[in-house]
Amino acid sequence: MGNCCERAGNFFGPQKNTNVRVSLPAVCFVWQIAMIILFGVFIRYDDESDVRLWIQHKLDHNITSDIENDFYFRYPSFQDVHVMIFVGFGFLMTFLKRYSFGGVGFNFLIAAFGLQWALLMQGWFHSLDLTTGKISIGVESLINADFCCAGSLIAFGALLGKVSPVQLLVVTLFGVTLFAVEEYIILSLLHCRDAGGSMVIHAFGGYYGLAISWVLYRPNLHLSKRLNGSVYHSDVFAMIGTLFLWMFWPSFNSAITDHGDGQHRAAINTYLALASSVLTTVAISSMSQKKGKLDMVHIQNATLAGGVAMGTAAEFMITPYGSLIVGFCTGIISTFGYLFVTPFLERVLKLQDTCGVHNLHAVPGMLGGFIVTQTHMLNIVFDFTGSFANRSVGTQGGFQAAGTCVSIAFGLVGGAIVGFILRFPIWGDPADDNCYDDEVYWEVPEDEETLPPVLEYNNHMIHKHQDISESNFSVEQS
Amino acid sequence: MGNCCERAGNFFGPQKNTNVRVSLPAVCFVWQIAMIILFGVFIRYDDESDVRLWIQHKLDHNITSDIENDFYFRYPSFQDVHVMIFVGFGFLMTFLKRYSFGGVGFNFLIAAFGLQWALLMQGWFHSLDLTTGKISIGVESLINADFCCAGSLIAFGALLGKVSPVQLLVVTLFGVTLFAVEEYIILSLLHCRDAGGSMVIHAFGGYYGLAISWVLYRPNLHLSKRLNGSVYHSDVFAMIGTLFLWMFWPSFNSAITDHGDGQHRAAINTYLALASSVLTTVAISSMSQKKGKLDMVHIQNATLAGGVAMGTAAEFMITPYGSLIVGFCTGIISTFGYLFVTPFLERVLKLQDTCGVHNLHAVPGMLGGFIVTQTHMLNIVFDFTGSFANRSVGTQGGFQAAGTCVSIAFGLVGGAIVGFILRFPIWGDPADDNCYDDEVYWEVPEDEETLPPVLEYNNHMIHKHQDISESNFSVEQS
Amino acid sequence: MGNCCERAGNFFGPQKNTNVRVSLPAVCFVWQIAMIILFGVFIRYDDESDVRLWIQHKLDHNITSDIENDFYFRYPSFQDVHVMIFVGFGFLMTFLKRYSFGGVGFNFLIAAFGLQWALLMQGWFHSLDLTTGKISIGVESLINADFCCAGSLIAFGALLGKVSPVQLLVVTLFGVTLFAVEEYIILSLLHCRDAGGSMVIHAFGGYYGLAISWVLYRPNLHLSKRLNGSVYHSDVFAMIGTLFLWMFWPSFNSAITDHGDGQHRAAINTYLALASSVLTTVAISSMSQKKGKLDMVHIQNATLAGGVAMGTAAEFMITPYGSLIVGFCTGIISTFGYLFVTPFLERVLKLQDTCGVHNLHAVPGMLGGFIVTQTHMLNIVFDFTGSFANRSVGTQGGFQAAGTCVSIAFGLVGGAIVGFILRFPIWGDPADDNCYDDEVYWEVPEDEETLPPVLEYNNHMIHKHQDISESNFSVEQS
Repeated sequence: MGNCCERAGNFFGPQKNTNVRVSLPAVCFVWQIAMIILFGVFIRYDDESDVRLWIQHKLDHNITSDIENDFYFRYPSFQDVHVMIFVGFGFLMTFLKRYSFGGVGFNFLIAAFGLQWALLMQGWFHSLDLTTGKISIGVESLINADFCCAGSLIAFGALLGKVSPVQLLVVTLFGVTLFAVEEYIILSLLHCRDAGGSMVIHAFGGYYGLAISWVLYRPNLHLSKRLNGSVYHSDVFAMIGTLFLWMFWPSFNSAITDHGDGQHRAAINTYLALASSVLTTVAISSMSQKKGKLDMVHIQNATLAGGVAMGTAAEFMITPYGSLIVGFCTGIISTFGYLFVTPFLERVLKLQDTCGVHNLHAVPGMLGGFIVTQTHMLNIVFDFTGSFANRSVGTQGGFQAAGTCVSIAFGLVGGAIVGFILRFPIWGDPADDNCYDDEVYWEVPEDEETLPPVLEYNNHMIHKHQDISESNFSVEQS
Repeated sequence: MGNCCERAGNFFGPQKNTNVRVSLPAVCFVWQIAMIILFGVFIRYDDESDVRLWIQHKLDHNITSDIENDFYFRYPSFQDVHVMIFVGFGFLMTFLKRYSFGGVGFNFLIAAFGLQWALLMQGWFHSLDLTTGKISIGVESLINADFCCAGSLIAFGALLGKVSPVQLLVVTLFGVTLFAVEEYIILSLLHCRDAGGSMVIHAFGGYYGLAISWVLYRPNLHLSKRLNGSVYHSDVFAMIGTLFLWMFWPSFNSAITDHGDGQHRAAINTYLALASSVLTTVAISSMSQKKGKLDMVHIQNATLAGGVAMGTAAEFMITPYGSLIVGFCTGIISTFGYLFVTPFLERVLKLQDTCGVHNLHAVPGMLGGFIVTQTHMLNIVFDFTGSFANRSVGTQGGFQAAGTCVSIAFGLVGGAIVGFILRFPIWGDPADDNCYDDEVYWEVPEDEETLPPVLEYNNHMIHKHQDISESNFSVEQS
Repeated sequence: MGNCCERAGNFFGPQKNTNVRVSLPAVCFVWQIAMIILFGVFIRYDDESDVRLWIQHKLDHNITSDIENDFYFRYPSFQDVHVMIFVGFGFLMTFLKRYSFGGVGFNFLIAAFGLQWALLMQGWFHSLDLTTGKISIGVESLINADFCCAGSLIAFGALLGKVSPVQLLVVTLFGVTLFAVEEYIILSLLHCRDAGGSMVIHAFGGYYGLAISWVLYRPNLHLSKRLNGSVYHSDVFAMIGTLFLWMFWPSFNSAITDHGDGQHRAAINTYLALASSVLTTVAISSMSQKKGKLDMVHIQNATLAGGVAMGTAAEFMITPYGSLIVGFCTGIISTFGYLFVTPFLERVLKLQDTCGVHNLHAVPGMLGGFIVTQTHMLNIVFDFTGSFANRSVGTQGGFQAAGTCVSIAFGLVGGAIVGFILRFPIWGDPADDNCYDDEVYWEVPEDEETLPPVLEYNNHMIHKHQDISESNFSVEQS
């Protein structure tokens, strides 16, 4: 690959070209204009958000009060999901010492583009009116669009610091497209249940990102090692992301479940699974260190595994203690992943996974997808009325397993293809010794720019020392 | 002006007096006691929050369930708006390297005072019962009070770092008063629609702050130039503000629209306009830099312009693609504002606008106010039932334009007057070489205080170097 | 006490053993497994979250719409409370310069364990079905569990930086247990009203923490003085906590009040009391400093006192101006507490209260509990229908006072006992010269670890200076 040669050239030849001054604005403009045109052709308000249709809808359904508009059932959950997507994922990715702008900023860009494309893609597959050729959108569509972005944001976690914003927009374009297709197959063709998206969001997103990262393997990434880590404050910033994800996960898993008991139960189950994850994450994290010290990487990530794994089963009658068991197991599995699997994957499979999405999304998501099957086998009370298209519980379990496999396959194959596309030397990705560095794509505040890139953040102190030592020395010594 | 002389005196004479130990407590106490007295005379619970009146209300309106209490229609949106006011605006203003305490702390003070005064002012104008002489308040009043504070907080953005907390309380007192009057004229007399406040909040607040800043022009502000900028972490803090504003803007614009489809549609339209803004902001920001690098100032601010501009039209049948167009244009306009207009205003008009509220609030708010007119001219589907006091769409467009002009006029004239009041040399404002500095009004943690004010934050390192170099040198070298 | 001797040993003998590698995982695993077993035996979904029971419930209560599920009345408030517990309390405790990991991380651990144990304890006391032996849980149970954790988190505030995570889990186990008992006595036996928990949460939690801290008094704590303070950025982090607590307190106090006007009124009253607190806190803070400068400790804490004090009376017809008066007084009292009472307690009573919970929770909570009595005596309109078990207002006032005393007694006596348990030398608590330091229980990012613990955070700069001075000197000087 010419790409590799170019990378190697960093040592001997000129700096890699990371100028995105043409490509980034071009992609943003072209895609946004395309969105406007496609929205103009396809997208309309639905029955509950159109002024005339809502009046008709109330008459048709004998509704007397505006409170029965779906808005009031789902909008609070939508806003919680929205916070998870933008602040939760965004701040979770600020943990690197010099990539916080990129973490939260590119997350913002990906999601803002992705949700528009998702409204179209999901609309075409799920709510296209074949008579009028129009897609109707309402608050549930907005939630689904946010969900759809989550897949690409998870992939971003694996790629964090190693790709350009233009590449991220490509990842999102294909990610959302693949998501809509696999979601259609899993939910509409296989009739699986997956309200919180263990399979369609987390397993897919995780393996999608991992496959891309695998294709984009950088043998000389160690040249950026100095920046591939946190500092004290960046770890605290990342906890903002962790906590908003953790707190609002009950809303994530209940946002599109059935009105009434469905949303109620999904929230309870997720709340319990998450609480249980925290305890086992702390336990394993402490056990793994010589003096029992806790590792922020585990606390920031593995505590969330219970929410991921409850995605599929959240609305089921899995019982409160069943939820605790799910969280208990996934907290352990996820923390072990950070301790042993990520280093193993990097060493053996040449897989560089910046945020460890394998442990937080891919594996817990996959497990979540299989829980329904396990639930049955363990003879835990299983009680779900009138769905599953007349299937027995056993048959449904098989379909759920099939759905999980579909999501993984889409992630792996789709990610591999997208990875190869991203290897063309036109995207402005950073050199191996320039990864995890905001200087490449951001105007970083002045006082950090005067030092050579090899030095870390706070080193700018020293040159000031030089400048001020004469004038202020007397003050310092007094 | 004696004020100017005093400022010039900084170079040759004694330091300016920034002691607010008498004035700040005095203003706080007097105003808070006045609030208690006025609330005692005027403010009561409304039909839906008073225990007896709610029972009567349910009988009168044949309501069988408590869920039809307005609380359940609006409280989630109210809390989102509340977060925007205190965390959104507050953290957006932490971006300066040494004014984060002032940014988030004074924002807190302004809003906490402003909302009380707003309940009274808006009550007198909008919900005073002339029989009893009482104002009834409920959850919608709280939302409106928060909105009203937003006007003064926007003005604070233009003044950030250059005024004392006492001046800010004066700005708020007059800001809320002017707001209530212009709102009454625009909404109640001209019968304009402005649910999300493009005109009454953003255009007014923006021009109000700019007019004050223009009157308070500081020719020697360059003496504080070292502090008028961000550091890495302060930019990340500011992103907390940006994201909470961005995420919750759909709640802002839908909080007081009609129940049912009105709130639903306003949320959808705002969500889309904001997404579109992000793409065009990124595009223009990247185009404007030599290597295509993104500027945090643009990402933190211009991405929000779509929400500002959708304020007036949010509840209209503007169509989803119409919303995307609004965001598309305002993202571009706002970013261009930061690139070209703010420097131009400062150089030519002598207008010092710390946060660039001209680009984020004044212009997009004004545009938002005019959108209804444009909407009509562009023959976009316009469909709003039973309002506008029997006016044709064309006539209503004219009134909307008139309303926008009223808001701007109130901002400019009111701001100029308040600016002159603030020039009296009694308010304890900082000297020109002491702006943007928390040391003036805050007890700043010890380790930063030992250095002379000319040095920036992290420089305190050096004196420690002096102290510890002997004792720890061996450790360092090993 | 051998404990004391061991502490004294720090100067002459080996470092204190803070290794929690066995104890922390053991406690986490044992307790989480116990939770799973007890949940399996006792906890079930309630009428509104169980798929079959909800269908039956709708038939029984003649409910036609799912919107009347309690989920829609309480879930938005629940999520706000959840944010207060995890982000509010968590970030409020990040203010120390080198204990932010512990502040937010241990808060996370305490709450995640505490809420599970609270569901059981509160269930046994309040909703155990004696026929089936089962506890039914729904969204209101989740809110109550979060409330119950708050008691232990308040106690954590007094102990911050001085105890090990294992000790904190013990504090939580007993704290939740004591909470459930005192809550049962106060609400179910004495029939007090305390919707926002002034007595049962704040007065109890505050005195519980203070009593523990008093027993754990460290005479040589001054050895850690260098770390017992904030830095600039940590104070900004703490403001995240403050603001989320402040903004969502209306949800806290209205979360479990009566549907309809009850929730509505509680939100309004709390909103007003909080606004009033801010003004008086600023006033007293400014008055207390030579140049009128504000102190972040006051702004971060005393501004919240109005919310604490409104806990008991939030749902009463206390009138809007009554709420302002409550906030006015408690803001003053709380700020005076930080100025005078905390230093007094430390000097005279040997009480080390890291976060000053005495001023924010103990005293305002106690005052809040007594407000009902005062309310009556002041002849303020008191209007509450059909509760109080046929008591006169005067009698009820007496019972409220009795309830407050019960909560304080439980806090003091329970805390003293727990404190003595925590003095056994087995819990891995830090040495006197190692308090307030994340290094003890956390893997702290590398670049801070190379310096001896006596030096503060940013000092790691210096050794880099050594490393790079040769290679980069030319760059620095140019």
